[in-house]
Amino acid sequence: MYRSHNCGELNLSDINKEVTLSGWVAKVRDKGFVIWADLRDRYGITQLIFDEERTPKEIMETAKGLGREFVVQITGTVIERTSKNPNIPTGQIEVLVTAIKVLNQSLVPPFTIEDQTDGGEDIRMKYRYLDIRRNPVKENLIFRHKVAIEVRKYLSDEGFIEVETPYLIKSTPEGARDFVVPSRMNEGQFYALPQSPQTFKQLLMVGGMDKYFQIVKCFRDEDLRADRQPEFTQIDCEMAFVEQEDILNVFEGLTRHLLQEIKGVTVDSFPRMTYDDAMKKYGNDKPDIRFGMEFGELNAVAQHKEFGVFNDAELVVGIAVPGAATYTRKEIDALIDWVRRPQVGAKGMVYVKYNADGSLKSSVDKFYDSNDLAEWAKITGAKPGDLICVLSGDANKTRTQLSALRMELATRLGLRKNNEFAPLWVIDFPLLELDEETGHYHAMHHPFTSPKPGQLALLDTDPGAVKANAYDLVLNGNEIGGGSIRIHDTDMQATMFKHLGFSPEEAKAQFGFLMEAFKYGAPPHGGLAFGLDRLVAILGGQETIRDFIAFPKNNSGRDVMIDAPSPIDEEQLKELNLKLNISL
Amino acid sequence: MYRSHNCGELNLSDINKEVTLSGWVAKVRDKGFVIWADLRDRYGITQLIFDEERTPKEIMETAKGLGREFVVQITGTVIERTSKNPNIPTGQIEVLVTAIKVLNQSLVPPFTIEDQTDGGEDIRMKYRYLDIRRNPVKENLIFRHKVAIEVRKYLSDEGFIEVETPYLIKSTPEGARDFVVPSRMNEGQFYALPQSPQTFKQLLMVGGMDKYFQIVKCFRDEDLRADRQPEFTQIDCEMAFVEQEDILNVFEGLTRHLLQEIKGVTVDSFPRMTYDDAMKKYGNDKPDIRFGMEFGELNAVAQHKEFGVFNDAELVVGIAVPGAATYTRKEIDALIDWVRRPQVGAKGMVYVKYNADGSLKSSVDKFYDSNDLAEWAKITGAKPGDLICVLSGDANKTRTQLSALRMELATRLGLRKNNEFAPLWVIDFPLLELDEETGHYHAMHHPFTSPKPGQLALLDTDPGAVKANAYDLVLNGNEIGGGSIRIHDTDMQATMFKHLGFSPEEAKAQFGFLMEAFKYGAPPHGGLAFGLDRLVAILGGQETIRDFIAFPKNNSGRDVMIDAPSPIDEEQLKELNLKLNISL
Repeated sequence: MYRSHNCGELNLSDINKEVTLSGWVAKVRDKGFVIWADLRDRYGITQLIFDEERTPKEIMETAKGLGREFVVQITGTVIERTSKNPNIPTGQIEVLVTAIKVLNQSLVPPFTIEDQTDGGEDIRMKYRYLDIRRNPVKENLIFRHKVAIEVRKYLSDEGFIEVETPYLIKSTPEGARDFVVPSRMNEGQFYALPQSPQTFKQLLMVGGMDKYFQIVKCFRDEDLRADRQPEFTQIDCEMAFVEQEDILNVFEGLTRHLLQEIKGVTVDSFPRMTYDDAMKKYGNDKPDIRFGMEFGELNAVAQHKEFGVFNDAELVVGIAVPGAATYTRKEIDALIDWVRRPQVGAKGMVYVKYNADGSLKSSVDKFYDSNDLAEWAKITGAKPGDLICVLSGDANKTRTQLSALRMELATRLGLRKNNEFAPLWVIDFPLLELDEETGHYHAMHHPFTSPKPGQLALLDTDPGAVKANAYDLVLNGNEIGGGSIRIHDTDMQATMFKHLGFSPEEAKAQFGFLMEAFKYGAPPHGGLAFGLDRLVAILGGQETIRDFIAFPKNNSGRDVMIDAPSPIDEEQLKELNLKLNISL
Repeated sequence: MYRSHNCGELNLSDINKEVTLSGWVAKVRDKGFVIWADLRDRYGITQLIFDEERTPKEIMETAKGLGREFVVQITGTVIERTSKNPNIPTGQIEVLVTAIKVLNQSLVPPFTIEDQTDGGEDIRMKYRYLDIRRNPVKENLIFRHKVAIEVRKYLSDEGFIEVETPYLIKSTPEGARDFVVPSRMNEGQFYALPQSPQTFKQLLMVGGMDKYFQIVKCFRDEDLRADRQPEFTQIDCEMAFVEQEDILNVFEGLTRHLLQEIKGVTVDSFPRMTYDDAMKKYGNDKPDIRFGMEFGELNAVAQHKEFGVFNDAELVVGIAVPGAATYTRKEIDALIDWVRRPQVGAKGMVYVKYNADGSLKSSVDKFYDSNDLAEWAKITGAKPGDLICVLSGDANKTRTQLSALRMELATRLGLRKNNEFAPLWVIDFPLLELDEETGHYHAMHHPFTSPKPGQLALLDTDPGAVKANAYDLVLNGNEIGGGSIRIHDTDMQATMFKHLGFSPEEAKAQFGFLMEAFKYGAPPHGGLAFGLDRLVAILGGQETIRDFIAFPKNNSGRDVMIDAPSPIDEEQLKELNLKLNISL
């Protein structure tokens, strides 16, 4: 038996008990005649004491030889500390060691195993097993476990069945981002790793499984943005005999459950907003609604004066920044520089100071009098003390720029609070999205999403105007999930493929099995998927999903700890009937 | 809203209620003036009734057009049936339909959607989504879900944390059975899919995670035996600061919990048997101990007489087959033919009838008198009425042959009862296994398994005799899991790799990251993995794991429903810097 207790549980009620503990030496303070060592395990830290008077000499010697991260087993007596530490549960006691065994030694770790470490990201990734010993990382992993438990609990209680779908599936030419897997038994043929279990969950609905879910890994071989991973985890769900309303209600319930159980937060309202409204009010299909700063469109009051910049613009739009009327000229110039950065791309910014005394002062006083500016204040909802920031130009671009400015200012002003949660359904997404480069439309969600009833005819005349039965769940300005009501009719699915530019042959080669399945009594169905990595990070009040993944990959898709991917043997390639195109 | 109730819940207490149901038309009986239809969903079957007197004409017309597996939504009134069906929960009522909507039509399904179907395995696999509509398959998937829930519940309550480990890991030359995954971002380099998360769970122990589990997919690209899958699911576990005893206790607890919660079975005893004893008593490292028929070794009493076959044999060993003394000559000849089949491989079989009257009659009466045979009966534990079957020859081979005979006879005699559960730990496995072809030893479990304390020296002198801290859990003659106490010391791990024929360079290239990790305070640790597919099948009282997998692959590793694997585009190959070695 390696331990009678863990390192996080002993307290004053255990005084005089003989205990056995195992763990890592976190810290040693050697005062010569007395030595203290902090012993750490998953559950906490317990202080050990060795002293010349009470501790046998050979144990004293061993204690003197202890290094950081040595693994030791000790037996000793729980005694009261003279100098107590109120910050930890075991802070009232220490253990007077009567026996010690070094279970394993340790080299000096390449960074300190403390909440605030001196190690940079790269070194911590290479020695991730040491990083996991640190409280923040360990707690994140335990937190993730708890979220997954509550997800499974809620959905199971709602009658959902977790069904495992295959990882070795069919590669589709459309799947430019598929990871492929050569098969040894079927020479020259490849599986693909799923980007999502989409078609399988639909087949489960055709199979009558009714309410399906799965917490499942998905894979995407694409250039990684800062916070993406080639493998990521989804909470994947599907229901049959449901309308959009049924699905939103179930997953509103799940989200409320998680916020309640995990964060102790009761959400008052769970608003819904159309995609069009979200774009108009926030310039963004995943608005953070924890704070106001809604867009005010100023075309009607700002155009047809003598300010050419606005007159030429498709859209003139502003936000009221709370309490920012006191910004200095220098601060405002810095803000203008910020919106002009290539990442934002605005040409410039007009501002109005709505001073605390009610006076209005703008950068365009030449063109607008205070009556005009008072109109602007009214439309943007500005109050005395606010700063109104106005951008103009092409409607879509200007909205995106103003959205970026809104988020930046909210962050600077501390309005994006980690422990405040404001979920939002964004609904009525467009069915199709125009690829500006190719001029072709492609599915905004995926090709199985159904259009709103009665809008099918629009596909021929005005494809961009067709709305879908598609919805996203947004939490604090992050999309944490999305889904749709699916097409369940073979003919409509064929029509959709046609509009997406698939030839009948291509559609058949890729999705023939699904269209075939639809011929045998497919029920109406729909579903959604939540990104677990992102959800956990947001619930944890943090930004970076990597901090909630045990063994993440870096931005090049590499696992630097195990050094993968890596070249493989010529022999192994040959067995797969493959060779490298260009030897590297 | 598609339904107010499901098809499994209405009964006499709902009489006169107006209800809305959705589901599949399972059966239609059209008597002209009255039509009955069975409506089926995941929850059951409800009988619908349409009749000329009470049902509007156009609804009658629709009812007449209903085909099998049409998807319909109906509204109607719950009424009492005249002819009740006591076999189903809804058998007391039927629904008089007042409105009907055909939600989707169906072609005639290629096999009947009934508990006993007319479809063969191949066609059911191709249309797996229809197969899943059948009760037995649907119930198996729901059963699997329940098992997974109980596994997670038990382990979480025991303080285990489910941690997701990566799927895109490092390919190792040793991993001849690795599926590899070419990386687009890292040209010419490959990931591998994990055969198990072995090294990651060990790194989690080094990371202080203490008690880890995961229900996780694993992958093996090898020739598939009848009941193997290229992707399979493991309950994977690891613990730190534990000895073998601690691990056995936890997973005995898990197994008891599952049998209790899932099957309502309380297991009395949970015996442990050494590998050597299992081989000696049952000729098998996964003995089915639900019935006796233990091996009796007869060398001492059967050799040194005049029967040359026995005298030349390394081992003479028999079993008592209960109640089989009445076998006819013909039946016994058939049994002899059975053991002579190439799959079993015995040269012949000696038998003794221990007749009900106490007399003994054998096929070797020429060499043995009844005193001799009485000795055999005593050693094999035969009672009057039993048949003693004796095989002889090379010890290992003979044991394997007699084990096959024992299992066959137990099956024939109905001794292997689906709803009787007898778990068993087999412990003290050999560390190494001799590959008879190459003459080299390889790790019986895996290279991270630790030898029994004090046996390291034997590695040089008698490698085959070294026992490991390794154990298997056997249930009803099936290995459902296994594990070991791991090596946690860099030097011992290096020694082990050396004995397994790795050069230091090979060991470093493949497992350098693990050996490096061991230098930073690796705790003593160990664990095990259960095969979930097999476990679920056995708990379900069935043999075939495929019946408990939603979308299984066939013996060639193909998914015949989606037709995977399949060739991929030249373009896609090129992007991966690959080409086919030989065009196919």
